[in-house]
Amino acid sequence: MKYSPLITELIESFKCLPGVGAKSAQRMAFHLLERNRPGALRLSNAMHDAMEHVKHCAQCRTFTESELCGICTSPARQQAQILCVVESPQDIIAIEQTSEFSGQYFVLMGHLSPIDGIGPSEIGLDILAKRLTDSTIQEVILATNPTVEGEATAHYIGQMCSQHGIKASRIAHGVPVGGELEYIDGSTLSHAFSGRREI
Amino acid sequence: MKYSPLITELIESFKCLPGVGAKSAQRMAFHLLERNRPGALRLSNAMHDAMEHVKHCAQCRTFTESELCGICTSPARQQAQILCVVESPQDIIAIEQTSEFSGQYFVLMGHLSPIDGIGPSEIGLDILAKRLTDSTIQEVILATNPTVEGEATAHYIGQMCSQHGIKASRIAHGVPVGGELEYIDGSTLSHAFSGRREI
Repeated sequence: MKYSPLITELIESFKCLPGVGAKSAQRMAFHLLERNRPGALRLSNAMHDAMEHVKHCAQCRTFTESELCGICTSPARQQAQILCVVESPQDIIAIEQTSEFSGQYFVLMGHLSPIDGIGPSEIGLDILAKRLTDSTIQEVILATNPTVEGEATAHYIGQMCSQHGIKASRIAHGVPVGGELEYIDGSTLSHAFSGRREI
Repeated sequence: MKYSPLITELIESFKCLPGVGAKSAQRMAFHLLERNRPGALRLSNAMHDAMEHVKHCAQCRTFTESELCGICTSPARQQAQILCVVESPQDIIAIEQTSEFSGQYFVLMGHLSPIDGIGPSEIGLDILAKRLTDSTIQEVILATNPTVEGEATAHYIGQMCSQHGIKASRIAHGVPVGGELEYIDGSTLSHAFSGRREI
């Protein structure tokens, strides 16, 4: 015996969410059916609207339902002649929460990964090159993740910048604040030493 | 800076799912936007249809979009004069997977819990009483969970059965197959000893 067709379809559909398997999908389906039908209808509508209308910002490639995102349309941001390159829209939020940066962004939506067929045009580097040529940007901060692919991507964009005569910098790697030296991996510690600053 | 309105609404809506907080909701939203828009639209439709159309089976109270569920409409099941009382629709699936039982079911959709205002009529015991009076059921198996509330509910329904002159039985409690005695709690071990069977 199986569940009725609508319930089976609901449980199957839940498996498209990351980290949700058969048991979690079943738990979610019954939780909503038993306890939160209005919430489920709200989620259903929100998903439908977002999937239909959210696209990429024409300038920075982050997700937005408008032609340009909130940061790209901000006059104060437009005056800043500094651009931060990140891998994902979530990275923008993390950086904005520090209030350290008030320039513009460019979102790669991934990183270079030739083995997966992800080359420069897949991560929008043609759009970035055009922007480096057309605008008055004077510095590019490379804030890709400190992984092998992230480093390779940063290196590639760094070379693009030098071709355009634009200064490129990489975010610092080192011991995270609150961390303990004893538990930091060797590669990070090496970075922390080579990147030391006079006090 | 925040996400655009549609994305903010999507992330907020995901928090209605059990076990999903701010970070998971964000991860789910971006996973779907980046990688699985067709899956998200399918889930959106499945949720909408299920929330609008799934109701309770008129006879056993499990979830179904029909008037009666698949088990209640099965002629073979109708001939069986044995009824199994469970707390949730998921319990039916667990029991069906054992192929041990081929009678009918009754789903309480919860358990007696006076402190939360859940009395006999909230768990459908008026419907069950009517069914015990009208039908030819000869035995009721009480398969509520082995918790304090589940035991109290089983005891209550057991008394209802004896008033109707119907035999009631409780599923066995004991050491789970594959378990090790060393790690079993005392209460379960007591049940295992008192419920011992001659071999």
